[in-house]
Amino acid sequence: MAGYDRGRLDLPFVGFCTFAKSPICSDWDKIDADVAVMGAPFDFGTQWRAGARFGPRSIREASTLFAFGHDGAYDHEDDVTYLADARIVDIGDADIIHTDTVQSHANIEYGVRKILKAGAIPLVLGGDHSVNIPCINAFDDQEPFHVVHVDAHLDFVDERHGVRFGHGNPLRRAAEKPYVTGLTQLGIRNVSSTAKDGYDDARRMGSDILSVRQFRKLGVDAVIERIPAGKRYYLTIDIDGFDPSIAPGTGTPSHGGFTYYEVLELLEGLTRRGTICGIDLVEVAPDYDHTGGTAILAAQLLLNVIGRMLYHRT
Amino acid sequence: MAGYDRGRLDLPFVGFCTFAKSPICSDWDKIDADVAVMGAPFDFGTQWRAGARFGPRSIREASTLFAFGHDGAYDHEDDVTYLADARIVDIGDADIIHTDTVQSHANIEYGVRKILKAGAIPLVLGGDHSVNIPCINAFDDQEPFHVVHVDAHLDFVDERHGVRFGHGNPLRRAAEKPYVTGLTQLGIRNVSSTAKDGYDDARRMGSDILSVRQFRKLGVDAVIERIPAGKRYYLTIDIDGFDPSIAPGTGTPSHGGFTYYEVLELLEGLTRRGTICGIDLVEVAPDYDHTGGTAILAAQLLLNVIGRMLYHRT
Amino acid sequence: MAGYDRGRLDLPFVGFCTFAKSPICSDWDKIDADVAVMGAPFDFGTQWRAGARFGPRSIREASTLFAFGHDGAYDHEDDVTYLADARIVDIGDADIIHTDTVQSHANIEYGVRKILKAGAIPLVLGGDHSVNIPCINAFDDQEPFHVVHVDAHLDFVDERHGVRFGHGNPLRRAAEKPYVTGLTQLGIRNVSSTAKDGYDDARRMGSDILSVRQFRKLGVDAVIERIPAGKRYYLTIDIDGFDPSIAPGTGTPSHGGFTYYEVLELLEGLTRRGTICGIDLVEVAPDYDHTGGTAILAAQLLLNVIGRMLYHRT
Amino acid sequence: MAGYDRGRLDLPFVGFCTFAKSPICSDWDKIDADVAVMGAPFDFGTQWRAGARFGPRSIREASTLFAFGHDGAYDHEDDVTYLADARIVDIGDADIIHTDTVQSHANIEYGVRKILKAGAIPLVLGGDHSVNIPCINAFDDQEPFHVVHVDAHLDFVDERHGVRFGHGNPLRRAAEKPYVTGLTQLGIRNVSSTAKDGYDDARRMGSDILSVRQFRKLGVDAVIERIPAGKRYYLTIDIDGFDPSIAPGTGTPSHGGFTYYEVLELLEGLTRRGTICGIDLVEVAPDYDHTGGTAILAAQLLLNVIGRMLYHRT
Amino acid sequence: MAGYDRGRLDLPFVGFCTFAKSPICSDWDKIDADVAVMGAPFDFGTQWRAGARFGPRSIREASTLFAFGHDGAYDHEDDVTYLADARIVDIGDADIIHTDTVQSHANIEYGVRKILKAGAIPLVLGGDHSVNIPCINAFDDQEPFHVVHVDAHLDFVDERHGVRFGHGNPLRRAAEKPYVTGLTQLGIRNVSSTAKDGYDDARRMGSDILSVRQFRKLGVDAVIERIPAGKRYYLTIDIDGFDPSIAPGTGTPSHGGFTYYEVLELLEGLTRRGTICGIDLVEVAPDYDHTGGTAILAAQLLLNVIGRMLYHRT
Amino acid sequence: MAGYDRGRLDLPFVGFCTFAKSPICSDWDKIDADVAVMGAPFDFGTQWRAGARFGPRSIREASTLFAFGHDGAYDHEDDVTYLADARIVDIGDADIIHTDTVQSHANIEYGVRKILKAGAIPLVLGGDHSVNIPCINAFDDQEPFHVVHVDAHLDFVDERHGVRFGHGNPLRRAAEKPYVTGLTQLGIRNVSSTAKDGYDDARRMGSDILSVRQFRKLGVDAVIERIPAGKRYYLTIDIDGFDPSIAPGTGTPSHGGFTYYEVLELLEGLTRRGTICGIDLVEVAPDYDHTGGTAILAAQLLLNVIGRMLYHRT
Repeated sequence: MAGYDRGRLDLPFVGFCTFAKSPICSDWDKIDADVAVMGAPFDFGTQWRAGARFGPRSIREASTLFAFGHDGAYDHEDDVTYLADARIVDIGDADIIHTDTVQSHANIEYGVRKILKAGAIPLVLGGDHSVNIPCINAFDDQEPFHVVHVDAHLDFVDERHGVRFGHGNPLRRAAEKPYVTGLTQLGIRNVSSTAKDGYDDARRMGSDILSVRQFRKLGVDAVIERIPAGKRYYLTIDIDGFDPSIAPGTGTPSHGGFTYYEVLELLEGLTRRGTICGIDLVEVAPDYDHTGGTAILAAQLLLNVIGRMLYHRT
Repeated sequence: MAGYDRGRLDLPFVGFCTFAKSPICSDWDKIDADVAVMGAPFDFGTQWRAGARFGPRSIREASTLFAFGHDGAYDHEDDVTYLADARIVDIGDADIIHTDTVQSHANIEYGVRKILKAGAIPLVLGGDHSVNIPCINAFDDQEPFHVVHVDAHLDFVDERHGVRFGHGNPLRRAAEKPYVTGLTQLGIRNVSSTAKDGYDDARRMGSDILSVRQFRKLGVDAVIERIPAGKRYYLTIDIDGFDPSIAPGTGTPSHGGFTYYEVLELLEGLTRRGTICGIDLVEVAPDYDHTGGTAILAAQLLLNVIGRMLYHRT
Repeated sequence: MAGYDRGRLDLPFVGFCTFAKSPICSDWDKIDADVAVMGAPFDFGTQWRAGARFGPRSIREASTLFAFGHDGAYDHEDDVTYLADARIVDIGDADIIHTDTVQSHANIEYGVRKILKAGAIPLVLGGDHSVNIPCINAFDDQEPFHVVHVDAHLDFVDERHGVRFGHGNPLRRAAEKPYVTGLTQLGIRNVSSTAKDGYDDARRMGSDILSVRQFRKLGVDAVIERIPAGKRYYLTIDIDGFDPSIAPGTGTPSHGGFTYYEVLELLEGLTRRGTICGIDLVEVAPDYDHTGGTAILAAQLLLNVIGRMLYHRT
Repeated sequence: MAGYDRGRLDLPFVGFCTFAKSPICSDWDKIDADVAVMGAPFDFGTQWRAGARFGPRSIREASTLFAFGHDGAYDHEDDVTYLADARIVDIGDADIIHTDTVQSHANIEYGVRKILKAGAIPLVLGGDHSVNIPCINAFDDQEPFHVVHVDAHLDFVDERHGVRFGHGNPLRRAAEKPYVTGLTQLGIRNVSSTAKDGYDDARRMGSDILSVRQFRKLGVDAVIERIPAGKRYYLTIDIDGFDPSIAPGTGTPSHGGFTYYEVLELLEGLTRRGTICGIDLVEVAPDYDHTGGTAILAAQLLLNVIGRMLYHRT
Repeated sequence: MAGYDRGRLDLPFVGFCTFAKSPICSDWDKIDADVAVMGAPFDFGTQWRAGARFGPRSIREASTLFAFGHDGAYDHEDDVTYLADARIVDIGDADIIHTDTVQSHANIEYGVRKILKAGAIPLVLGGDHSVNIPCINAFDDQEPFHVVHVDAHLDFVDERHGVRFGHGNPLRRAAEKPYVTGLTQLGIRNVSSTAKDGYDDARRMGSDILSVRQFRKLGVDAVIERIPAGKRYYLTIDIDGFDPSIAPGTGTPSHGGFTYYEVLELLEGLTRRGTICGIDLVEVAPDYDHTGGTAILAAQLLLNVIGRMLYHRT
Repeated sequence: MAGYDRGRLDLPFVGFCTFAKSPICSDWDKIDADVAVMGAPFDFGTQWRAGARFGPRSIREASTLFAFGHDGAYDHEDDVTYLADARIVDIGDADIIHTDTVQSHANIEYGVRKILKAGAIPLVLGGDHSVNIPCINAFDDQEPFHVVHVDAHLDFVDERHGVRFGHGNPLRRAAEKPYVTGLTQLGIRNVSSTAKDGYDDARRMGSDILSVRQFRKLGVDAVIERIPAGKRYYLTIDIDGFDPSIAPGTGTPSHGGFTYYEVLELLEGLTRRGTICGIDLVEVAPDYDHTGGTAILAAQLLLNVIGRMLYHRT
């Protein structure tokens, strides 16, 4: 983040749009950071509206609103200045090949591997939820982890009409990995694209599934208690886990979703409970939300999570 | 609903937009269904923004998001697959005559009578709230029923400047019918178009009026208790009963409205408490909501209500 | 407000857009009213999106929805008809000089002084939050008052790169006034533009700061209790104090904000607790919200507050 | 129009939106002007999109762009300052009654009669094209005139399903009047709502019909030559006569329409050829054009026509 | 098309959205028509904006504007009623498989083969321009034809990063077919995605390339003269061949494009010069054009072309 | 520009948005390029709509459409591959200080001076037209030049209400400079913000003023002939010089403007006639054009002008 003492005011509307106005790292063999941000603008995996290919750009632009000039972000509720010494870099986007899902996914996997190799935490900006598949693949030589999943949809379809790598399949693909020790799937609700057998499979393969109403009834603390403590967590956030009132810019909105603070408090709890080893935030399709609110939500959430994640580590 | 085993994937963005991709029934003398859907694209009864004439099309299009391929909609909270064997048909739209309220309303009434004659439950997609008037008229040879009304506005104006059939009048017109045994009016709030005398009349004519805050204070179960048990219910939903955060695409938005689950839980309770004999959902004006969220809300709610209504009957 | 008995129906979409269809008072030396509304369409003080210059027009237009024909607004929850004999005038806009912050602010101050001189309560429609600065300036020969501030941001920056009169500075400027006896700042949250030292200064200068979550935990009654009783209150409402779900049309949206009723109940409490001596509502940038909902929120809130303010005055 | 010497800058975005910031004349018995502007926000006559009810407001707002401060509008091509001493008043809107075409049209007619009685030229802002019917009716005690009609559609349907006063009927209704001496219909093109018999009737009843391409082939001077010289002209402009590239905000756009200067040069020629006795401009539906361009077109055209009309009168 | 004498007015905003309100033919083995319309909602081949998957729906909806009730479309310039006895059917959409270009293209090819087998002329609504590839493939057992191509881009890339079936490749793929006797590529302009070698290849493989300015300099008649006479023509129209002023709702707009009449006159000439054996119109991405104008352009053009094509055959 | 042989496809929607995906030069003392691009996101000088502060970002994003992978842009009409070896750098934005016109302008001037000192041609992306003032100021130690101005408005107001540096003043300020040898002002039309005396002053101070119609009547070659040959030209392009049909996203649109090729041909002629020493393109306000077309126009024009400028130099 910029600091006013460096000579410029750099208002949010001024300057290039990297994530949180972080420095660019173009040489992927020289990543040196706590968190490395990569875009994965792939959206051929969508089943209704496309447009998540513009998600990374929109989140980067929105993040400028929260990135001007304080050498950190003071939160008066916590009385903490987060992000003051965060080392975040933006490495740009994975190369996407139109018409070609396999190669595009491979390129995303390649970028995440580079980040992991550098010892940084990958933060991947989707793209549709299928980009989670190569993200998880890239961890095959890492320590095991538990997946925490925020979404309206279970995304646990095994195969349908030959499709195994679309945006309805990622959590199934993740659950199949030997290094994924379990899943917590939150926000799942109502009319879904996964049929009953998908839910049965998920539970059998180690998933704890909670709807928004179940989450609310339990309360955020009890939900966090259900997540294994002291573990490494991979966090995958489909923006449609949030309510369409604050996240209309997405491919398949589903009413009855989370509010901002419900998810922030969950994730803050997670940063205290163990170690976040990777994050993807997907399905922001900005052209369906001319208010910009969906991308602002993604940026605001991510900056708060990164701040807390870095503050609570060690 | 489609089934994947019938040879096609039929993603939501593929194919014609009938309600929930139901079969079309063009011959109104051969309706054979549990539920028959008809559009009533009339909006000359509006007092601020028009545009509800495109409500039926937008709800049909949005309903495709919830209609792909599972032979039913599995709800993991209830552990029920709804709609698996639902017999829904879409009979198209009532004929609307520009400049002519009387004839347009007559055509709507005609369609509802055809549905009733076939023994199906009419689901009418407005159009503005005045289309409720011919809907109710069509029931004059049916068994009596209680009206359940979700709305921001009381819509109980008797007559103003000669207007008796606009979108501020329908509940008054309904209350006048001998076969309407009572009304429950929910969500009514704040600055309204009905003056004090309208409220007095409503209460005198058998209406139980609750605001959103009163509804919340009582809780959904207590509200359902106030509705006479074991009756036939006609359900009329003005989308502006919902909060503008999720239903901005409407003619006269009013802040402080219902959330999605508040209304879903109310209506689920209703499907358990008696028999729904007719539904209209009105005032979706899609061109005021480029996110599509308002039409998605209407479609998501209706499919859930139909599913529960058919599941709980008998 | 119009009355139907005066011969016209005057639907909301008919006629000129003054605030609540109030009479225009062009001669600022002849203001005779309880409340005088003035626009302050200045937005050079914004740090991200501009566009609040169109706030006054949009709020006036939206207010027509709530201003048709009842000789007052009946609220069935309170069983009161508010605004029946309210004397509101719309005096138009302060003259804004492009490129020139100092002169534009002076012109706003000039208008507020005229209103105060006439003994009316000024209601200023922004414009960005910097317009609060000349509003407060205009009270330098009035009785002292307490400032009640609804906002996502503290707006307590003293000076940055020479800027002292931007939209991040107003509450600091207010706190410096000898006739401002204290401040209650509500809704302040999350990533903010004011750094830690600003919060420290604010508290030292007499501010009581509460976030949305703190407000909710306390409850509205307890919050009102924290505001000194029996005082004169100046009310400054940044529309971004509300949640972006209902107020996306603003310069710097911040997720996690107030709902409509939270603020209405707070302000209703305030009208009972003391005397409101001035109001500004700022940062409505209508072109970022094509649903119109943000301007509708502003208009709906203001009309309810004015109604209660006039009803509860002795 | 304002003048800078009167003490205020009054930028376009500042102040109330009357047409060209003209004075309001609320007492329709005291109209004293060259041109009196009245809105006719009626749109129940539309056959596809509604929304022209917001036409008057949008044109008034757009007109502020052309109305700031010069004591007239200097045109460097003509080396003339138009409008310097134009006496324009804005009398507000005709009262519209939802659901009731007959009464709404009667109220429009009433307003036009008041303007004519005052000796002013009526400029009516629609609303849909059906509002031309009561406008023409109001001239039944005036001298005869020739109708000049700019439109994509012939609007010459006699009756269809009982409809005689919709937006497809006005020119037929006009042609039936004894005081309408002839019609020139320009811009008529392509797929239209009037069938062949309508065209035959039009020609038989005195209409000269030209498409855009025929207009271009002839040239504007030759087209003007076809209009009877030295007559009184009533000018009715459907904004869809223009190309959708500049007038997308309308109910039934038709590609292949006029450019701005084609119509301006036609109308300038008309102001030199005879006397314009009345104008309506209809079918601006602003909510379909978020750029504002359609309303800007209407305002820019009207101000230029009024300027030339007043300049060339003797 | 509907006829008023069949008892309903069926205004454009009323009823289901098939192309031109044509009858649906769901059984692809029983197509019996002059023209059979099929949607191909595939857009994974795009290189900038996606969204053409909603092209078929938007064109169908827009086509209702031109399809109401006259038993044909009278064109006063030609004094012909087109389409009066046109036998058009709408067979719905090809099945699209997300993530899978090969299978989606195969499904499109399957549908076109069914139409050809039935002896009807296929009219395919894209989707991105890559859908032209399976369309052309389906003609491999038909008589040879000449391709007439309207586009901003040459789309003649052979292979890039392995991509051979994206929206930059179709005309190259077509030119490779033995049954494609030549190509006329019109509207090609300015900054393009095909590099110099692609142009060289195109010319060598039989293409006649003209920019918009070259087209205008020659005039439409001379352009038509350059197309081999008396042949079968396959017509592929990328909507971005038109100017962005009338076709902004597309993936890769390019300024300086065709007007409506330029293309209509070209295509009318073509219907006189030989036989049109197939049509695709691609790259309408409606969510980028909230005015609806792009889809209206597509529908207006297609209905006029079909009318002329059927009128001039034999 | 990228080249495919460097290992990535880098589709337009992939990667950071610098102008034409040029390298970033953050150290303004080490600019080494033919053309250096700087944003000037200042819009407090606007008199109607603001929003040009987002112009630089929008143009950069749009420029990615024209910047993918060919090692130059082949133009088949000219048979030239432009930009193949162009050395363009993007130096980011001038620092803007909200509320402070003087300091913001000074910061813009500072950046242009840095570019000039490096011997590069400055390309400044506005921002409103007032940013031209500091741009011209920065040339005070350079060789004299002639100003070529494309705009709807003359922008020649000397002073009004104290304003001398707003967006209505820049050409007046330029004309006052001793090193500005003359002005050619093109596209000036219709209702303008400059009064008659401004035109008189302009002509007296060396300006040649032509409207769009006058430009068309003369033809582009004759217009170029009127510009002094063999000179240095500073080019200032207000996007509202173009027609609102292709440039609606601007503060003060004016109908009847230039088409794309009219301006491109003019500027191409200019690149042949002398040396372009600086360019600014201003008044792109992207949030008023959701189609993106205005920013695409700016980017397409600039890339073509730069290509030709570099090709024709020597």
